[in-house]
Amino acid sequence: MDHRKTKNPSRRRCSTFAEPPPTPPLRLLSSAPILVSSKASTTNNMAATLPLLLVPSAIVFDNRNEPDKAIATDYFSTSNDVFKQDWRNRSKYQIFQYISLKWILCFVIGIVVSLIGFFNNLAIENIAGQKFVITSNLMLANRYLAAFLIFAAANLGLTLFAVLITTLIAPETAGSGIPEVKAYLNGVDAPAIFSFRTLLIKIVGTIAAVSSSLNVGKAGPMVHTGACIAALTCQGGSKKYGLTWKWFRFFNNDRDRRDLVTCGSAAGIAAAFRAPVGGVLFALEEMASWWRSALLWRAFFTTAVVAILLRGLTDLCISGKCGLFGTGGLIIFDVTSADITYHLIDVPPVLLLGVIGGVAGGLYNFLMGKVLRFYNLINEKGIAYKVLLACTISIVTSCLLFGLPWFASCRPCPADASEPCPTIGRSGNYKKFQCQPGEYNELASLFFNTNDDAIKNLFSKDTDTEFHPKSVLIFFITCFFLGIFSYGIVAPVGLFIPIIVTGASYGRLVGLLIGASSNLNHGLFAVLGAASLLGGSMRMTVSLCVILLELTNNLLLLPLIMLVLLVSKTVADAFNGNIYDQIMKLKGFPYLETHAEPYMRQLTVSDVVSGPLRVFNGIELVANIVHVLRTSGHNGFPVVDEPPYSEAPILYGLILRSHLITLIKKKDFQATPTVTDLDGVGQFSSNDFAKQGLGYAEKIEDIELTEEEMEMYIDLHPFTNASPYTVVETMSLAKALTLFRGVGLRHLLVVPKTSGRLPVVGILTRHDFMPEHILGLHPLLAKIKWKRLRFQFPLWNKIFS
Amino acid sequence: MDHRKTKNPSRRRCSTFAEPPPTPPLRLLSSAPILVSSKASTTNNMAATLPLLLVPSAIVFDNRNEPDKAIATDYFSTSNDVFKQDWRNRSKYQIFQYISLKWILCFVIGIVVSLIGFFNNLAIENIAGQKFVITSNLMLANRYLAAFLIFAAANLGLTLFAVLITTLIAPETAGSGIPEVKAYLNGVDAPAIFSFRTLLIKIVGTIAAVSSSLNVGKAGPMVHTGACIAALTCQGGSKKYGLTWKWFRFFNNDRDRRDLVTCGSAAGIAAAFRAPVGGVLFALEEMASWWRSALLWRAFFTTAVVAILLRGLTDLCISGKCGLFGTGGLIIFDVTSADITYHLIDVPPVLLLGVIGGVAGGLYNFLMGKVLRFYNLINEKGIAYKVLLACTISIVTSCLLFGLPWFASCRPCPADASEPCPTIGRSGNYKKFQCQPGEYNELASLFFNTNDDAIKNLFSKDTDTEFHPKSVLIFFITCFFLGIFSYGIVAPVGLFIPIIVTGASYGRLVGLLIGASSNLNHGLFAVLGAASLLGGSMRMTVSLCVILLELTNNLLLLPLIMLVLLVSKTVADAFNGNIYDQIMKLKGFPYLETHAEPYMRQLTVSDVVSGPLRVFNGIELVANIVHVLRTSGHNGFPVVDEPPYSEAPILYGLILRSHLITLIKKKDFQATPTVTDLDGVGQFSSNDFAKQGLGYAEKIEDIELTEEEMEMYIDLHPFTNASPYTVVETMSLAKALTLFRGVGLRHLLVVPKTSGRLPVVGILTRHDFMPEHILGLHPLLAKIKWKRLRFQFPLWNKIFS
Repeated sequence: MDHRKTKNPSRRRCSTFAEPPPTPPLRLLSSAPILVSSKASTTNNMAATLPLLLVPSAIVFDNRNEPDKAIATDYFSTSNDVFKQDWRNRSKYQIFQYISLKWILCFVIGIVVSLIGFFNNLAIENIAGQKFVITSNLMLANRYLAAFLIFAAANLGLTLFAVLITTLIAPETAGSGIPEVKAYLNGVDAPAIFSFRTLLIKIVGTIAAVSSSLNVGKAGPMVHTGACIAALTCQGGSKKYGLTWKWFRFFNNDRDRRDLVTCGSAAGIAAAFRAPVGGVLFALEEMASWWRSALLWRAFFTTAVVAILLRGLTDLCISGKCGLFGTGGLIIFDVTSADITYHLIDVPPVLLLGVIGGVAGGLYNFLMGKVLRFYNLINEKGIAYKVLLACTISIVTSCLLFGLPWFASCRPCPADASEPCPTIGRSGNYKKFQCQPGEYNELASLFFNTNDDAIKNLFSKDTDTEFHPKSVLIFFITCFFLGIFSYGIVAPVGLFIPIIVTGASYGRLVGLLIGASSNLNHGLFAVLGAASLLGGSMRMTVSLCVILLELTNNLLLLPLIMLVLLVSKTVADAFNGNIYDQIMKLKGFPYLETHAEPYMRQLTVSDVVSGPLRVFNGIELVANIVHVLRTSGHNGFPVVDEPPYSEAPILYGLILRSHLITLIKKKDFQATPTVTDLDGVGQFSSNDFAKQGLGYAEKIEDIELTEEEMEMYIDLHPFTNASPYTVVETMSLAKALTLFRGVGLRHLLVVPKTSGRLPVVGILTRHDFMPEHILGLHPLLAKIKWKRLRFQFPLWNKIFS
Repeated sequence: MDHRKTKNPSRRRCSTFAEPPPTPPLRLLSSAPILVSSKASTTNNMAATLPLLLVPSAIVFDNRNEPDKAIATDYFSTSNDVFKQDWRNRSKYQIFQYISLKWILCFVIGIVVSLIGFFNNLAIENIAGQKFVITSNLMLANRYLAAFLIFAAANLGLTLFAVLITTLIAPETAGSGIPEVKAYLNGVDAPAIFSFRTLLIKIVGTIAAVSSSLNVGKAGPMVHTGACIAALTCQGGSKKYGLTWKWFRFFNNDRDRRDLVTCGSAAGIAAAFRAPVGGVLFALEEMASWWRSALLWRAFFTTAVVAILLRGLTDLCISGKCGLFGTGGLIIFDVTSADITYHLIDVPPVLLLGVIGGVAGGLYNFLMGKVLRFYNLINEKGIAYKVLLACTISIVTSCLLFGLPWFASCRPCPADASEPCPTIGRSGNYKKFQCQPGEYNELASLFFNTNDDAIKNLFSKDTDTEFHPKSVLIFFITCFFLGIFSYGIVAPVGLFIPIIVTGASYGRLVGLLIGASSNLNHGLFAVLGAASLLGGSMRMTVSLCVILLELTNNLLLLPLIMLVLLVSKTVADAFNGNIYDQIMKLKGFPYLETHAEPYMRQLTVSDVVSGPLRVFNGIELVANIVHVLRTSGHNGFPVVDEPPYSEAPILYGLILRSHLITLIKKKDFQATPTVTDLDGVGQFSSNDFAKQGLGYAEKIEDIELTEEEMEMYIDLHPFTNASPYTVVETMSLAKALTLFRGVGLRHLLVVPKTSGRLPVVGILTRHDFMPEHILGLHPLLAKIKWKRLRFQFPLWNKIFS
């Protein structure tokens, strides 16, 4: 076979991940020829009286340490006998309890997410609004310097607050959180991303960061908030603070938690954009790695609760009880209620917008990657550097927001303005800024405003004459770069809103430049521009389309938005990948793709299995278990039965590290090696083996054992998952990946093709499927260009790296 | 283990499917103890000079015949060495060809589907319209008997035509086709469902059936049409008529075809309801069994093409060039462009509608199942019975449509009517029927109309006073039962429209009864009623929601529609299942569910493997292959290497029946058993092993071989899939199902737990996972009520069965 030629002599070397600490020499399993009877029993019951096998455990081949990012998706590894017993005993009442509780949890998640979403908006609108009102009042009194100083100081203070709480209390809340949640749903459980602390800092930090006039968004953090609420809800509150309830024992498993986190992230988008259907589709298209029809329904229910409650809460504010929140209502941009008509002649400008969006989105992602890499270097140096970086960004932003409007000339108010001119209150299209009464500053109504209001101004219809192309161009360039440079600070900030505002600005610009030759009004151009940059940067299609429709409340836009999204995604895909995937890669999450890379077809699983493999016997010495657990970081170990417990060495199953620790902690050891039956494990309930709470994992180092206990035995059989998924060592890697990804595994055992050897030759984990690992083992493969067809820009790379 | 207790002694018996014909006694594989060396080579290259093993092939255990419904999903079984070779040789240019062609195909599918959708509507509106115009004119002249006779005769003629072409030319087009497409996407390839003939009859039959005023729909057939077009497009036209093109060779595989069929079905819904996003979601939620993010994008592109083209085509008709098609435009019901406001007080009526919809939907599905079972008995008796049944339905329908309006009293036209009263043209809210000038018959505007127009009338706003509750009640009851009794006739008919019209009628009725105590207008009640019956019957959520929103063009309805759908689905799920699943079950498709039934956790795979297993050697005698192929209906056979080709019997892989037939047909045999290398198979291209065209499968009986040829050998190795998925015999059935379903397999090999036996103990196919099969083997399991919590109505069952 060809692939053998591409093998690298160093393939046993572990490339990128930490080597396990050196282990003391353990005896190898006997590898002499074994006489096998064809009548070997198919049952795995063993005579309980057989003496213990003397070979205790063995290092045979190899498996790499799993790095510190523990991996969560464990839908099958936990199915040992104790669990099975529990499921059998579950009564109809308990099943009813389980089902109804799951729906109640979705309901609760919906309620809490919408309340938090509403509270977030209320707080941001009031804090930022108050800031703008004070500044504007000072400017009305011609005290420009004081206005600027107060404006800049408020921004700096808010930014500083956000950065400090993030850095000191919960550094994992930095950024939008969407990559973390996406990785979690793929099976990568980054530490502490769903703790109560994270939730709190995420909410407070977002409010402070967005209020500080940085060009950052609140939608992404809302997704993380939703996911966090879901994860906390499903474990019945925070385990750390003892807030648990007996009913929630059903939800202490990865599958249910994953389902609820998916619903939570859908609820987050629904709350951020009041887009229930868009939220479900976003969770489906962007977030979830596994999806079932039942989940669609559940997510839909959750977002429906969000939508209905949010509507009710917004209604409460109509009469002006919510301070500066006003009647504008949340983040909704009701563009036009009038009929929109368009014809074939309007298609070319729309296509043009799509192409611009694709190029700009590709560039956005490219620059964002470079900036984030650069920021990482700064942020690594310590807290002071993180704070300094954020402060610099904040001051620069303040200067730009306050300084740039001065370049715009004052324009007289239109006679037929639909709102007071110049604007007296907080938001509106006619900001006075430095102008004389009766005049307005067009740039100020974009810059000197919250992003939400800037978007509303850009999306507004019948305002075709209010913006000058030059102003919009200045706004576009500023937003584009501020967006890229602001995301990397260590605070909970999102990407959606900056991208929408940037896209809307160049959309409006295109509208202004095309002018009267199109029937579309400029507000519509702004909407399509926002769609195109979103498509070019985030590369979603159906979900963005629906979110934008729900945002603008106009279904007639559908064909145009579809067109723009398709074009911009296609164009941008020719350059680089999805922005969230880029960030995820930067963060080093081992995200498992659905599709196999072409070179995986050329490899067999034995080509990537590496590192020492640790195997336990069915009945194992405690000392051996403790030693292996202490000296290796593996999370799963094969259990092998050997003569005299079986006629030949056979693979009994797979046992998890966490279960072994539970067993050792219980100290239910046997003085002599005997086979226990299921009744003997009555003292263990399935709860003992349930997934531990967030941020709560016991360590083997914390368990103290006496010399005597170390010389005792444990029968691992009842606690072993007796039917793990296996592949033969000659299986193609691509097919193994299909199995691993399709079923959602954490460990995949590799068994030998020929009999007579140890019945297991290795364990595949998520890391073995990572391209970096495979290409590290087989560097020759990297040279062959198997990648997808993409334009390469060596010049750009040279300039920016 | 507990599950052993539930084993039934008759478990080796094959219960529901045809037993394979008795086979002549073949020698069993040697089962003596075998000496196994631990140094067994891991390579599978064998010395080419070793003499042939004398044991030719063997029946060891058991595997059932696959029934005549061939199973298509074969994404992995075809990956033998010849295929791999081909992929390796594929150049960048070819990859570009492949990708661009796939997009072009989606574009073509979108274009063709929208053209056919438009043509369908045009034809139906004109044929049915002409009929109503002629009848109305006769009634204007007081020639009521003549009017009735012409009306009934036209209906009968159209029905007869639809039934005759369906029965005589393409019986597989009967019904909506959605269950067939859904089963195909799950991996069940029912014969001839995607042939050119099917497409033609589906289109013509739908037009005739819907024009004949039967209470049937055109949306379901449109889905089948879309899928058909996709399947035909991807094989480059109809193979039967030689319309193929070289480029299309890339698409002769199940994976690409399945993708395109998914896009085609999305396009079908998009064309039927002009709902592009709804179409994608429908394909995702209801149709597809496997879904990838890339597919979402591709489906979205296809439906975008449909939406844009359809819009253009409808615009062409605005000036009245399309005959009676008019300006109303397709199937769109623009309910209200005005703002809809609703408050908390409006929620109880909406919930009530949801509950009614759930109960009615459950009853609808229940009765539909009974009626279809009864009709099946009639239709089985022959063509004459089929025709007679359809004619009876047609005549009864004509009588009801013409007769019932006479029971409504004539009402004077309102003074402020927004349209001419009584209606002069074809459609409108004020049908004159038998009334005097200046009066109108409310029932006639519902009955004496196409379903589309009836829906428009029910959905129309500001018509709260036009319908009397009694009339709407009569209409509801008639529609409900006509819908149930009309679907079973042997013609291409759908379910969507009848359900919408029935739901809309009781929605309007609820609106009338609640009266002024609600702010919602009656048209809105009708929309919500339609949503509730759709939800209660079809059990979709997100997709129905979006389809209804796109249909009514009003996003403000979203929270209400969500609420109604959630309630009605929940209520209906307590009674029975989805209507399409019911029909699929009636048709006997082995549909593979995602979730494992609880009792599957209690079984191991060895508990369900049954029937004789046929195994080939790596180098096999032609006579043996021919014999096995002739005497068994299996579609896959394990290939085992035995000494002297290997040190112990090892499983080499899996070979497909179709590949074996191709090999035998080529007659490239060897006089002596030698191992060929890959260069020796140069005469075979991957095209030889590509999936054969639709309805085109070679049979072993058609190949004639001489005595001499029968005594020759074939080296099966290059044509065998060398890495089939395997499970150990002790694997739990639920986990095997997860693998089978998750990866999308056709064959799953079962290997023994202990070595020393034959390296394969059975093959699992889709049928082994069917509940009927498992419960047939283990009847005790059926007694334990593992089913989901559902209300049972023994009384109903007694009455109706």
